[in-house]
Formats: sequence, C-alpha cells, structure tokens
Amino acid sequence: MNELINNIIAPAFNMKKDQISLDAVPLNTDYPVMITTDGFTVDPLFFPGGDIGKLAVCGTLNDLLVSGAIPEYLTVNFFIEEGFPVSDLNRIVTSMGETAKHNDVSIIAGDTKVLPKDSVSGIQIATTGIGKTLNTQLSLSQIKPNDLIFCTGPLGDHGVSVMLAREAYGLHGEVKSDCQSVKAIAESLMALDGLKFMRDPTRGGLTSVCHEIAQACSLGINLIEKDIPIRDSVKSFCELLGFNPLQMACEGRIIFIAHPSINKNLLSHISKDIVQIGSMTQQHSQVIIETPLGGFNIVPELENETLPRIC
Amino acid sequence: MNELINNIIAPAFNMKKDQISLDAVPLNTDYPVMITTDGFTVDPLFFPGGDIGKLAVCGTLNDLLVSGAIPEYLTVNFFIEEGFPVSDLNRIVTSMGETAKHNDVSIIAGDTKVLPKDSVSGIQIATTGIGKTLNTQLSLSQIKPNDLIFCTGPLGDHGVSVMLAREAYGLHGEVKSDCQSVKAIAESLMALDGLKFMRDPTRGGLTSVCHEIAQACSLGINLIEKDIPIRDSVKSFCELLGFNPLQMACEGRIIFIAHPSINKNLLSHISKDIVQIGSMTQQHSQVIIETPLGGFNIVPELENETLPRIC
Repeated sequence: MNELINNIIAPAFNMKKDQISLDAVPLNTDYPVMITTDGFTVDPLFFPGGDIGKLAVCGTLNDLLVSGAIPEYLTVNFFIEEGFPVSDLNRIVTSMGETAKHNDVSIIAGDTKVLPKDSVSGIQIATTGIGKTLNTQLSLSQIKPNDLIFCTGPLGDHGVSVMLAREAYGLHGEVKSDCQSVKAIAESLMALDGLKFMRDPTRGGLTSVCHEIAQACSLGINLIEKDIPIRDSVKSFCELLGFNPLQMACEGRIIFIAHPSINKNLLSHISKDIVQIGSMTQQHSQVIIETPLGGFNIVPELENETLPRIC
Repeated sequence: MNELINNIIAPAFNMKKDQISLDAVPLNTDYPVMITTDGFTVDPLFFPGGDIGKLAVCGTLNDLLVSGAIPEYLTVNFFIEEGFPVSDLNRIVTSMGETAKHNDVSIIAGDTKVLPKDSVSGIQIATTGIGKTLNTQLSLSQIKPNDLIFCTGPLGDHGVSVMLAREAYGLHGEVKSDCQSVKAIAESLMALDGLKFMRDPTRGGLTSVCHEIAQACSLGINLIEKDIPIRDSVKSFCELLGFNPLQMACEGRIIFIAHPSINKNLLSHISKDIVQIGSMTQQHSQVIIETPLGGFNIVPELENETLPRIC
C-alpha cells in the first residue's frame, strides 16, 4: 500500500513527501468557498476521450464551475480490488494528475483502500472538490418566463462513447466522449450580465436538467429540436437501439439559462458552439419539444433506470 | 436512488430539501481550514460499540482533531451493493447523522452510487472532513529528545472488538470498540502549553505511530510496557492468537507528545485515563520497550499485512 501511494499515486498528484504523511491538510482560504463530492464507477474504465480518472476529476470540477466557483482543491478516495493491474492504475492516476494540473487544481488529500478480490469490482473513485466562489448570483430562483436556454456543444457524446466502448449490443464504432473540464467556458459565462443558472447535463442528459429546472421554477420549457446539437453518429446509435439522445449523458457540456437581453455576440465570442435550444414559459408547466415538422411533443421525465451506468 | 436519498439519507444527515439538489454547497469560512479524507470498509458492518458509519464519521473527525482543527463540515460518498438491506443502511446513516450532530458537524454534501450485485461487497464509505484550524503549532518537527509520550486510554479495543464480532478463529466474546470522537479531549489538550504532536493510533496501532514518529524525527523511543494500558480481555485475545496488542487498531484514542514541563495535574484533570507510556531519546533510533522484568526489546516495524482489515 505504501509503495503504491509513494511510487504511483503521490507522484501523479504532485504531492510532496511530507504532505503524504499528514492526517489533514491546511487550506489557505480567507474567502467564501464551495464544496462538492461525487462517486465514480464506469465500465469500461477506459473509453475514447477519457477514463474513470479524468471523469472523476472533470465531474467534480464541473460541479463546482456550474455552481459559480473556481475549483482549487481536490481530495480523492480509491477503493481498489486486489490484483487490479498496476499499469491501469498508473494510467488512471496520471490522467487525474494531468487533468488537475491543467485546471490549476491541487489534489491535497487522498486515501486508498485495497480490498480483497471480488469485494469490489476493479476500481471506484470518490472525489471532493473545493472552489473559490466567484458568482453568488446563480440560482434556480432567478429564472423567469421568457428566459433563454442554451447549451455549449453537441449532446450525448459521452453516453454513446461509453456504450460503444463496451462493444455491447454487437455494435462497434468510435464516438469520442466529451469528457472535459468546462472551466474556460464557465469562467467566461460567469462574467456575463444576464447569466442566471448553469448545470452540467450528466446522468439523464438534457431531459433530466430540463425537468429539474421546470419543477423547481414551476414554469414550462419549450425546446426546439432542430436547434439542439447532436452529432449524426450519436443520432444513428440512438435510433438503432431505441435510446433517446436527449437522455444521454454529457461530461463536458453546460446547459445554461440567461435573461433574453444577454449579449449573443459575446456568447458566440466565448464559443462558437454555444447555441440557444429553447426558452422558459409560463404558458404550461411541461417540457415540450417542437419537432422539425412543427409538431409539439411532451418530453417525458426519465422514470426508470433504463440506461446503463455511464457516469 | 432518489427515494433512498430523500427518505433515508437526507433525513439522517439533517439535510434540507434545497440542499440535496445543489451541485456544490457554500462553506462559510473566513479563517484557515484543514481538510482530510478517508475511505472505510469493515467486516462486519456492525460491531459492539459501533458500525461502519460511526467509524467513518469518527475516523474523519479524529484525523482533523489530532491535526489541530475543530471539525465543522463533512462530505460523504456511499458505494452500495444492489440489494443491500435498507434497514442496515438506515442504521448506518442514522448512526452517522447522530455522531455528526453530537460533534457539531454538518454533513453538507454527499453522493450515493448503487452498484450491480457482486461489483461491491455490501457498502463502502468515503468521507471528507473540513475543520477550523485552532492549533497551528502541532508538528513532528517540534519533537525533541526527552519529550514525553502519552496515550489517552486503553489500546487495541477496536481491533479486538471487530475480530471477535466476526466470530472467526472459533472464538466468541465481546469487547466493546473504543470507536468515538476524540473531540473533547483533543480540544482540551490543544489548549495546553507544551503539547507538540497528536496522532490517533488506527491501523497498525501504537507500533505504527511510534515508528512513524521515530523515523520522522530521527530519534529513538523508549516505551514502558507496564505503563501501557491494555485491557485484560484484549491481552487474552492477543495471547491466544499470537497477535501483538501494540499493533491493534484504536478508533477513539490519541497518542501525544509533550514537552517534559507539561502540567500533569492539568492532564489528569482533562482525563484520568491519560497516562505517560514512554519518552523520546537520542541514545538510539529504534522503538524499544522495557519489559516488566526490566529487559529491553526492540518493537519491530509492522511490515506485512498480517492483520485483517478492521478500520
């Protein structure tokens, strides 16, 4: 265990020797901070565009970012099955260390439990993130009728990527996961007048985010299907298997709500992939999607666990 | 999952409904804070004196306390096997909520992953704790020759308790685990002149703590066997099975190092169970124990994983 920590995990996380032996680590905070925590398990551990380690770091950073905080510190817990290949662990912690470094985040505390064979499957990761609060105005309670709904890029890549990587359903193909930190784009959005709320559409995809917003605000949502960016490869996969791409997980996108007056030139300057996909309404309290043919469908809430675990 | 969180976990943790739906939670900190993280897995989940939930909360709080911080916030991650009895989960989260409340600690963020049967054994818990730094002087680098070594109560109760609860080795009996928060005693110790270092002797017991201190300070340690408090029931169990009670885990004790001038009247006022068990020396760089007959034995470092996982 010590060898594992000293030779593999600590170097990957840029931890100093005297830091490893501490029971608790001081944080330099004389400003408001935010905290978030999340557990990660994914099958397979490696997929095009990422791995469970990158997923854990990005997932935790993104939760802070969409909440209006700039991530600064991360703690990590591993539960590892005895006999888990050290080379795989190396890839995972290296990926975590690189992703953290790239996002100016320090991994400051960690713990590793190696468990007897069969008492855990492969590896599970729990991460806690702490960030400096930058924007304290973001809140579901800010959302009003006629506010606009945007997304920052194609939806569903992560979900489809992981399912394809399993080679389940007898299908082969490669879709790259969107697994990434949303730091640059979230930080730019936070600086804009009129930004009201952000959320990363992970488990349950756009559908879950929309229902959560509609319920919390007691408002309806109108989505425009032709404006929602979904890659052809993701569409084909979902059509073939009867999945709804709007329910597919993303791990590097933001859904955000803004006042109608938000400066759209600035938005397209932040990223050319930002598109408006709908708006808030008080005419009804459903999530409604306008089809390309001009029809209107209710987007049902994701009730059962129909999708395999992918984030 | 939602039902689990809303009906079982959130109530036990005193979480408000609007807190559950947040991606990240603000911390009110305008002072230096400490952070620690730890993963917990124990078999059996329930043992005399505690359970995995109490163990997780106390273990994390104690790491902050011996580091000189008063615990304030806790985040919790669960990895739960599908089909895990809800009644057991209820007992565990209730125990966690009560222990947190009793210690004035808020559980502010959490995440739960339910995993397919056989991909995790029962339940695993990862906790991250954040505390307000009270004493910034505690450090291994403060320790000098002739400093005194103390412990705050009988050693090894937790380790023996868990092993007996397994009814392994064909043995029956009940030893109550010492699993508890060391908040009251740590807080009192922190206020004393001459306190230099605290550590909770969990995995590896007193032996591991002594070797860690000796190595970090490049000093030797002299322990006095007759002064080390160990219950008769713990001694008998260890003798019977060939275990070394000094290697048995505690989950509610502190080993601390103090300047020889520390006020011993105040120490006994803090707890009548506090006893001096040895001292630091520059005569050698080993951990030596003086036997009741006046002999001297080297206390070997715990090299292999000879003990079953109990904390």
